[in-house]
Amino acid sequence: HRVRKLGSSVSLETAFRWNLDRDAMADLKIKTYYTFAKFPNPMIVEIFAREKGIDLFANEKQVDAPGLENRNAEHLARNPAGQLPYLELEDGTVIAETISICEWLEEVKPEPAFIGSTPEKRAVARMWQRRMEEHFVYPTFYSVRFWTASDDCTGPLKNFFAQRNKILIPGAWKEMQAWALSRLEWLEEVKKGSPSDYIAGDEMTV
Amino acid sequence: HRVRKLGSSVSLETAFRWNLDRDAMADLKIKTYYTFAKFPNPMIVEIFAREKGIDLFANEKQVDAPGLENRNAEHLARNPAGQLPYLELEDGTVIAETISICEWLEEVKPEPAFIGSTPEKRAVARMWQRRMEEHFVYPTFYSVRFWTASDDCTGPLKNFFAQRNKILIPGAWKEMQAWALSRLEWLEEVKKGSPSDYIAGDEMTV
Repeated sequence: HRVRKLGSSVSLETAFRWNLDRDAMADLKIKTYYTFAKFPNPMIVEIFAREKGIDLFANEKQVDAPGLENRNAEHLARNPAGQLPYLELEDGTVIAETISICEWLEEVKPEPAFIGSTPEKRAVARMWQRRMEEHFVYPTFYSVRFWTASDDCTGPLKNFFAQRNKILIPGAWKEMQAWALSRLEWLEEVKKGSPSDYIAGDEMTV
Repeated sequence: HRVRKLGSSVSLETAFRWNLDRDAMADLKIKTYYTFAKFPNPMIVEIFAREKGIDLFANEKQVDAPGLENRNAEHLARNPAGQLPYLELEDGTVIAETISICEWLEEVKPEPAFIGSTPEKRAVARMWQRRMEEHFVYPTFYSVRFWTASDDCTGPLKNFFAQRNKILIPGAWKEMQAWALSRLEWLEEVKKGSPSDYIAGDEMTV
């Protein structure tokens, strides 16, 4: 038995634990799941898929993102935004963007629901996902990216995003971080006294 | 006959032109549509609704956003993010965030489809919506907001967002603008030779 972590091929033992259904997966018509295991975005897609019992690893292709393979001509022809992960379906459809992939997985395998089981539950989950994305996720992302281009960054990530983002604003990284933190403080305030530990509703959602 | 513009109550003539179906709207169970007609976000929701024949104006309540009414205790209790527009349904569900509202409208009235008529078309529309949102819409929004807090802004919008955003980064407004413009240049390059005038697919989508 192989022990595995997110992003490499799956053992039968792990597949059992995650309730992966390889037969059902054939219906999804996924040709290739392009990813890089060490990035944070694929982790969202992979946890989302596994909790649904969807086996993305059967069609997984690891891409050398640190070596910029995801930004070579072959990948850009499929996914011009150059990011990972993305799906290529058997009919040639390419689905990129983490949350769009999750939405598609939810549509082709609705149960268990991690966006929501009714239009209203989905609306509330999407509302909260967006509230946290605009004011927490993006400012956090770009704070880190801008920081790598600043004099404050001296470690291995120095200039990591120089070839990945056309515009980096090193002078703004601390304020972007403050923006992200202010959203967490807002969230704590809004959720004060809430009976639920979840940001959206009282079940696990995207 | 009254001539109207987006955001005020609707004339029969306009309702006919937009094919609004007030009877069908009763099924949507919308209690109140809170909005401010002069803001850009409601315009997305309202165009989206009208093209579907959904009459939001029947339950519309204009909120004095310039006077910060949307950030008073009553509104924050329903929509703690404080933004407009948002929907309150008859069962008390609150749906805020422009795109989440559009997603809900699409679910409760799927035709005509402006996100998409299949999971794959919806995935592609959402992917493109997100591609443009992260690197064009948000940098544009925040460029303007940051500019209003900078010495470069001397007009009526000066400090307009001071009470609306906890963190403004006036020194970054020009670079945010350059970021947004770089996305348009990227889009032009990606779409070069495309037979479609649309960003996503070959039909109008969100």
